[in-house]
Amino acid sequence: MALVGRSWLLLIGFILFYVIYLLFGALIFSTIERPMEDKLRLEVEVLKQEFLNQSCVSAASLENFLFKVLAANKYGVFVLKNASATSNWDLASSMFFANTLVTTVGYGHSTPLSDTGKAFSIFYALLGVPFTMLVLTACVQRLLYPLVLAPVSLLQRSGLEPRPATAVHFVLLLLLVVLCFFLVPAAVFTKVEGSWSFLDGIYFCFISLCTIGLGDFVPGMQPEQKYRTLYLGAVMVYLFLGLMMMYLLLRTFHKMSDVHGLTTLLQLPRCEDSDPDEDREPIVDHAESPQRQTEKGASNHLEPGSQVSYNTINKG
Amino acid sequence: MALVGRSWLLLIGFILFYVIYLLFGALIFSTIERPMEDKLRLEVEVLKQEFLNQSCVSAASLENFLFKVLAANKYGVFVLKNASATSNWDLASSMFFANTLVTTVGYGHSTPLSDTGKAFSIFYALLGVPFTMLVLTACVQRLLYPLVLAPVSLLQRSGLEPRPATAVHFVLLLLLVVLCFFLVPAAVFTKVEGSWSFLDGIYFCFISLCTIGLGDFVPGMQPEQKYRTLYLGAVMVYLFLGLMMMYLLLRTFHKMSDVHGLTTLLQLPRCEDSDPDEDREPIVDHAESPQRQTEKGASNHLEPGSQVSYNTINKG
Repeated sequence: MALVGRSWLLLIGFILFYVIYLLFGALIFSTIERPMEDKLRLEVEVLKQEFLNQSCVSAASLENFLFKVLAANKYGVFVLKNASATSNWDLASSMFFANTLVTTVGYGHSTPLSDTGKAFSIFYALLGVPFTMLVLTACVQRLLYPLVLAPVSLLQRSGLEPRPATAVHFVLLLLLVVLCFFLVPAAVFTKVEGSWSFLDGIYFCFISLCTIGLGDFVPGMQPEQKYRTLYLGAVMVYLFLGLMMMYLLLRTFHKMSDVHGLTTLLQLPRCEDSDPDEDREPIVDHAESPQRQTEKGASNHLEPGSQVSYNTINKG
Repeated sequence: MALVGRSWLLLIGFILFYVIYLLFGALIFSTIERPMEDKLRLEVEVLKQEFLNQSCVSAASLENFLFKVLAANKYGVFVLKNASATSNWDLASSMFFANTLVTTVGYGHSTPLSDTGKAFSIFYALLGVPFTMLVLTACVQRLLYPLVLAPVSLLQRSGLEPRPATAVHFVLLLLLVVLCFFLVPAAVFTKVEGSWSFLDGIYFCFISLCTIGLGDFVPGMQPEQKYRTLYLGAVMVYLFLGLMMMYLLLRTFHKMSDVHGLTTLLQLPRCEDSDPDEDREPIVDHAESPQRQTEKGASNHLEPGSQVSYNTINKG
């Protein structure tokens, strides 16, 4: 009974800490951003007054006009002359939108206007999100041997113990990902976008590859973007490869935690599966000896009864 | 060699199909949305011309003013009198922002203005996103027995075979989730938000619980929202519970696929783990007999060598 109590207490502790973490974040964000917001708000207000003074426009008429402009802006329709050159729904932009939808990044720089568009978005993501995960997983499983198993094996053969070997490998992989998917792309975005600082670039990469996708920075949205279709295509490839590497990094971290007993410490479910060969079996069928194929075929396809059926597990 | 070729062909087929899927989506979105966009664009243009005709404002001066207004709008700072009543960075709003950040929903209805805010967002999400996943997983593991294992067991004891039992259970769970986390909340949002249609409500629930978070619909953003803090708090609880149920649904689907041999068909890694008791072991330590505790302690903590070390797996 004491154990049940302790276990619930632990879970409640987790949730309590989560709420505290949110409150802590809220306090920091509020402290940092509020003065900036007030400043910007004041600036805009002064600008509006100046505009009203310089012209013979009535405040109500301007307010009414701005209301419509901002409503259109919400849907990605801009009233400015320069910005309206490109549509949000040409083929390249639509594909970019579809891509951010199925990867759950969702910048929201343009959003469906019509009810049909909204309904189709739901239907499209319903199939697309799981399918994207499937493709990503298939790719990650292929990369697991050359990028994780082989290097760790190499490190071990060069004299390192298993634990330091996995740790050294993880740090090296992390550095590689930070370099290739954060620092270099951020530098490229800074160069191409013009108005982005390097921090903006890093911020964009991070917010995108975590699938948060706030949408305050979206590439290729400048009025006179050169080679826009090509550029958007490159960003889509970057997003796909980046998400793949983030997932690989997560899997590697989980595996390292297994070796270091971290998952045991946090009492997380361990990474290892019933079949120790799992990591050598990509989702998409991998080359194996014909004999092994037959064996696996026999155990997997012909004897469905041998599969663990979760309904037979009874609570002790 | 033929097998290697076939396996790569399959993966390439996957990726090709993914690109085709994106293209297909792009075509549909483009077809549906482009006319709507053009219409809205024209309306705004007519409005602008009317505004210019009615007043003595020069086009350049208006353009310049609108540019500043829209730039401020991008950061969630609105120029309209009504909308500016509430800050985006009061404590409740900041907490809502922090919540959408760590759950990777990221509406982007308000975004950090300052460099410090951007840097803190990265740091905050770096810790917050994995922690949120940990809390969600811990909660899902607690729900797995009452919502999955027990009902399936009950269905089986009432005479159903394992396969139909898991299928019936999955459909029932799906209906429950659709009712409690889509239909009912959508009705509530339609009622509270006023300007949202029922489809808008469903669309918001879907876009949020898939963590896409486009941000075209964000609750509690009306200028005169009653009990705003309470309402935002309720939305945060809804998001947390909803994400939990989506994750539970995904796990249940994966488990059902195991039983039905679907994972074998798609050659996905199977769900079952080396320890068949895994599902009975929540992340946060669960009540067990003291004897079992000691046994587990011995095998997990005292013999680290017994853990599967992924570096020892060599490619055959």
